[in-house]
Amino acid sequence: MAGNTFGVLFRVTTFGESHGPAVGCVIDGCPAGLVVEEDFLQHEMARRRPGQSTLVTQRREVDRVQILSGVFEGRTTGAPITLLINNEDQRSQDYAHLAQTFRPSHADYTYQAKYGHRDYRGGGRSSARETAARVAAGAVAKLLLRHFGIGIYAYVSQVGPIVLETPYTAVDLGQIETNEVRCPDTAVARQMEALIRQVRKAGDTVGGVITGLIKGCPPGLGEPVFDKLHADLAKAMLSINAAKGFEYGAGFTAAQMTGSRHNDLFTTAGGHIITQTNYSGGIQGGISNGMDIYFRVAFKPVATLLREQPSVDQSGNPTALPGRGRHDPCVVPRAVPIVEAMAALVLADHYLRAQSARIK
Amino acid sequence: MAGNTFGVLFRVTTFGESHGPAVGCVIDGCPAGLVVEEDFLQHEMARRRPGQSTLVTQRREVDRVQILSGVFEGRTTGAPITLLINNEDQRSQDYAHLAQTFRPSHADYTYQAKYGHRDYRGGGRSSARETAARVAAGAVAKLLLRHFGIGIYAYVSQVGPIVLETPYTAVDLGQIETNEVRCPDTAVARQMEALIRQVRKAGDTVGGVITGLIKGCPPGLGEPVFDKLHADLAKAMLSINAAKGFEYGAGFTAAQMTGSRHNDLFTTAGGHIITQTNYSGGIQGGISNGMDIYFRVAFKPVATLLREQPSVDQSGNPTALPGRGRHDPCVVPRAVPIVEAMAALVLADHYLRAQSARIK
Amino acid sequence: MAGNTFGVLFRVTTFGESHGPAVGCVIDGCPAGLVVEEDFLQHEMARRRPGQSTLVTQRREVDRVQILSGVFEGRTTGAPITLLINNEDQRSQDYAHLAQTFRPSHADYTYQAKYGHRDYRGGGRSSARETAARVAAGAVAKLLLRHFGIGIYAYVSQVGPIVLETPYTAVDLGQIETNEVRCPDTAVARQMEALIRQVRKAGDTVGGVITGLIKGCPPGLGEPVFDKLHADLAKAMLSINAAKGFEYGAGFTAAQMTGSRHNDLFTTAGGHIITQTNYSGGIQGGISNGMDIYFRVAFKPVATLLREQPSVDQSGNPTALPGRGRHDPCVVPRAVPIVEAMAALVLADHYLRAQSARIK
Amino acid sequence: MAGNTFGVLFRVTTFGESHGPAVGCVIDGCPAGLVVEEDFLQHEMARRRPGQSTLVTQRREVDRVQILSGVFEGRTTGAPITLLINNEDQRSQDYAHLAQTFRPSHADYTYQAKYGHRDYRGGGRSSARETAARVAAGAVAKLLLRHFGIGIYAYVSQVGPIVLETPYTAVDLGQIETNEVRCPDTAVARQMEALIRQVRKAGDTVGGVITGLIKGCPPGLGEPVFDKLHADLAKAMLSINAAKGFEYGAGFTAAQMTGSRHNDLFTTAGGHIITQTNYSGGIQGGISNGMDIYFRVAFKPVATLLREQPSVDQSGNPTALPGRGRHDPCVVPRAVPIVEAMAALVLADHYLRAQSARIK
Repeated sequence: MAGNTFGVLFRVTTFGESHGPAVGCVIDGCPAGLVVEEDFLQHEMARRRPGQSTLVTQRREVDRVQILSGVFEGRTTGAPITLLINNEDQRSQDYAHLAQTFRPSHADYTYQAKYGHRDYRGGGRSSARETAARVAAGAVAKLLLRHFGIGIYAYVSQVGPIVLETPYTAVDLGQIETNEVRCPDTAVARQMEALIRQVRKAGDTVGGVITGLIKGCPPGLGEPVFDKLHADLAKAMLSINAAKGFEYGAGFTAAQMTGSRHNDLFTTAGGHIITQTNYSGGIQGGISNGMDIYFRVAFKPVATLLREQPSVDQSGNPTALPGRGRHDPCVVPRAVPIVEAMAALVLADHYLRAQSARIK
Repeated sequence: MAGNTFGVLFRVTTFGESHGPAVGCVIDGCPAGLVVEEDFLQHEMARRRPGQSTLVTQRREVDRVQILSGVFEGRTTGAPITLLINNEDQRSQDYAHLAQTFRPSHADYTYQAKYGHRDYRGGGRSSARETAARVAAGAVAKLLLRHFGIGIYAYVSQVGPIVLETPYTAVDLGQIETNEVRCPDTAVARQMEALIRQVRKAGDTVGGVITGLIKGCPPGLGEPVFDKLHADLAKAMLSINAAKGFEYGAGFTAAQMTGSRHNDLFTTAGGHIITQTNYSGGIQGGISNGMDIYFRVAFKPVATLLREQPSVDQSGNPTALPGRGRHDPCVVPRAVPIVEAMAALVLADHYLRAQSARIK
Repeated sequence: MAGNTFGVLFRVTTFGESHGPAVGCVIDGCPAGLVVEEDFLQHEMARRRPGQSTLVTQRREVDRVQILSGVFEGRTTGAPITLLINNEDQRSQDYAHLAQTFRPSHADYTYQAKYGHRDYRGGGRSSARETAARVAAGAVAKLLLRHFGIGIYAYVSQVGPIVLETPYTAVDLGQIETNEVRCPDTAVARQMEALIRQVRKAGDTVGGVITGLIKGCPPGLGEPVFDKLHADLAKAMLSINAAKGFEYGAGFTAAQMTGSRHNDLFTTAGGHIITQTNYSGGIQGGISNGMDIYFRVAFKPVATLLREQPSVDQSGNPTALPGRGRHDPCVVPRAVPIVEAMAALVLADHYLRAQSARIK
Repeated sequence: MAGNTFGVLFRVTTFGESHGPAVGCVIDGCPAGLVVEEDFLQHEMARRRPGQSTLVTQRREVDRVQILSGVFEGRTTGAPITLLINNEDQRSQDYAHLAQTFRPSHADYTYQAKYGHRDYRGGGRSSARETAARVAAGAVAKLLLRHFGIGIYAYVSQVGPIVLETPYTAVDLGQIETNEVRCPDTAVARQMEALIRQVRKAGDTVGGVITGLIKGCPPGLGEPVFDKLHADLAKAMLSINAAKGFEYGAGFTAAQMTGSRHNDLFTTAGGHIITQTNYSGGIQGGISNGMDIYFRVAFKPVATLLREQPSVDQSGNPTALPGRGRHDPCVVPRAVPIVEAMAALVLADHYLRAQSARIK
């Protein structure tokens, strides 16, 4: 068990390397009877696909998902669902110079240290190409959650120093996909795009933040101690390449607050118990309370630069890395569907787990 | 599997409620032959114990750990290690008024929604009393890690708006336990203590931040995809009561940085490959690289106030909660050993997992 | 994870050694709201307890179960249920001679080989004393299954060469507890008892077979590939001390049969689809079909003899083991409640797992 | 988690249906650095392949294994190993008559009851076609075990009433592959083959028994309580299609034996502690003792007959099933490599698990 599986009941195993024949996943535990809309799966893949806009890597991948198992006459059967995505535009020869050299802030050195040898082509298993499989699995999870009335959203809320200050409650989610950077405020989005273009021109990269939002989650999802709903969200988000931080509800700003301000007082609306504020981020004691769940994920700047960088080879000798390879100057626009996918996997899993919480 | 177990190979299950007879844990997977120093276990318990200083809750618990199994003639046998801590100073009658009322920003409402009934005495299973079991398990994990040369540290780096600006590299770890707030800078610690006393006097509470630090971790710990070392640390930290955020290495500030600044360039020292900076926080691609691992955990202000608060009862009718109960005005001083314990559980688990990473 | 946990959703971890302070278990995943009848737990413990009849070991244990967590006002809360059974009549000094010697067909040698040292007192963790914890956990599982209409039964169907030939369909289950050997046919039971007494008088022991029976199981329990219902039953049964074999339905005799005879033809009764015969043992393709589930478990003769036996010490030098220690001359009468307990754990787990098999 | 995954550290997930595009598996946790001999994988697949002899189903499958991930320059990288086997000779139209009808002693009815709809083509997920993926995974496990000096063997020891009486110690393992039935005694093999041909001519099928043998296993493999080595072998074997029983060592005959005869007395040979007899089957207390591990697995007669059989449709109405479809008249010759594969998965998993049993 080398950590390639996620989830307890809705359990996803991903496989594949950047420059192998394919990446993909096996979903074990998706309930039978779910209608699998292949167009939706394809649509989600297109949102993560490289080459989709001028802001992202120009690697060209069709990223067509092939369903190898688990679906019969359009519906899930309860058997494992296997989703396969062939790798096409690989250009492995671009990476020959990395066979003996470690790229700074990549996983080259740590893989070598752990495994004794490594697939150096495009980062091998450590490549963000692996996240294509997560998006495919997440699309199935989203279909399941949609059936239960739960919606998953994410958007870019920061690129470098440019911050979208609008709270999630005031954001127009319909605007997310109207610009290349996936920020739901057109004016801010333009600033972000300009910064990304400027950074790229300088051969550099820049970090950012994605805000995630889950609407329609009923009270009762999440387990009380180690598998708290937000703890599993934290793990899910930090497992995404380049993620550096996670906070939910008031997050790090809660550290500065007093209890009298942070406490979410109860009230009722339409016969339901709700809270007047939502600093708790929709989760109390690890269990959803029926309010919106929201969180933020920080991403570091992409480590591959278009500039030459000094480094060392496997023997520790100094060497220089030329500035080449195809990559994103900023990871967050394409990471939006990945954040959504991981959130969907967490929610689908906890939805199923909650089925046996009490005797019916 | 209701989420009361943590870890894959070094696997801890905790049990017990605030006002039941005892809390405790079972550790399954601790290698045989480890010398278990009971004094060390007891010392760790004392660091988390309520009533240890004027800053924390005055609930009086001896918190003596009893070893029920798994240790013979002072050494682990490979059998499950059961650690039991009796509950003593419970005062259950203090909580009778909560049987029908939900405390704001506590887990009362969500437990009721999930389970249909609940042990309302002191929060039952949702009480921070559960973390006594984590500290006991963490003490065993620390002994194991010490055997492998790995040291675990944590300290308070923020209380409300008061921030310790010193980077972890410049902190004197020997100062952590010299003051009640566990901040390794005496001057800053005094400010924090003053703020906590002031907040308590106002019947209020305040949040804070704890910095964690792992020294001596060899390269190669952590699994590459979902079980990245920092992803498991994130889950571990967010599973602690009142935790709201986690970041490692440059964390959220990485979002503002460019790649040319954030990249940690390699060099060599003493024949080892190291990095010149450590924005990566000792982890690249989810796997430790041999540098120090550091992270920050945000905690919200404690939700129990010494003031009356409005709330609702189980039928949604408005009611008022009197300001009583024993609690900490600020959670971070006592959360320091809990952060350490959870970090130790993650590292011990990944140390064992790494044993089968490659053929020897 | 050293194998002390059983189950996926209804998950039991046992702990404790023969001569430590206590044995016990933690049940994680029992749904909230189940009424826990302590009398029933105690009754089940009494059925496994040593010293209950003239046929079994004279070790005296009260085996009172203490509920440490997870039950509030008589009902499960969803929190882990901890059941503790203190060890009382231990006589550790009886075992001092085993510190350096391996008993034949016991686990002394293999524990030493695996762990490097061992708790030699009464077999330590390898003692059948551990099964007290299984019976306690199984009692909770039985209460849960009773709520779902599922009944668990077991009886002795063979002792040495004496075989109860009556098929399970013709047995009077009400007779099981009317004799010391737990065989539901009085005449056969008397023969078995006579044999056991004769064997004991000779300082020897004898093996046997237990038949298990599950009634009221609805169709649809069990997972289709690795976690087939009978595969999990097989593992559960073989995990019991001294078990050597498992078969379900026609079992080993199916190897001799033709398909035309073995096939269970479908028919209907009372509007339900049933089978005319039940060679399948109530399970087809790993999933229950609504018919009775039945199986047989073989047990070896107890390895502890009242005769002197030759052996070797830890250095491999020849030595002799005196014939002493308290033990059962035949394990099957007391193993009946253990077989039931393990069957209940499997069924409870699969009942919960089946809840998410399809979209509702 | 719907039971399509096997193992804790060497963890295999299989996928695919009889008449989908492919079957396959993902192996997570195979150590890096293992040389993967593709010829060996292919050789193992050929041993299970349909159409290999006159005794088995004439479905024609090339069963070529494609390695999609986890191997670089001929060696495992530590990343998940994905093995894909395309389905070719499917003839789905042969199964249209089964859309509404349940075949006796197949999984048609139970899948329908559990999932609400089913892939009826060739049994879908319940088809023995799934075992092709197990053999592929098992081949990798065998390579790993070979590296550790452990050999896995299996042979047919019974077909219907014809029993190979030779004990495993006297069998010439080199003879196993010299005949179509895979019985290592030529004379007995001829009798078995004759019986199978006779049964097939009568439109019928017959059951059998396979003996498994593990040589070179060091002491110390297996976990002491629930994950006993033989308990995991039992589960592994019972998870194979058509398996009805498992016994190891003396097995069911141990039930008839006395302890004085069954006990395996210790002695030494070449400086090692060994046992004089091996009724224990190489395992004591769930942990290997260094002697040969042997076990027997009973298989029922194949349920598909070449005769018309009465049955019911999904509404419970009587109907008749024509005698058609391609199938084996006796499952055991082709099940030999499957038994080996499952044994290899268990041993590989426990070999890795044993690495952290004690402090080094």
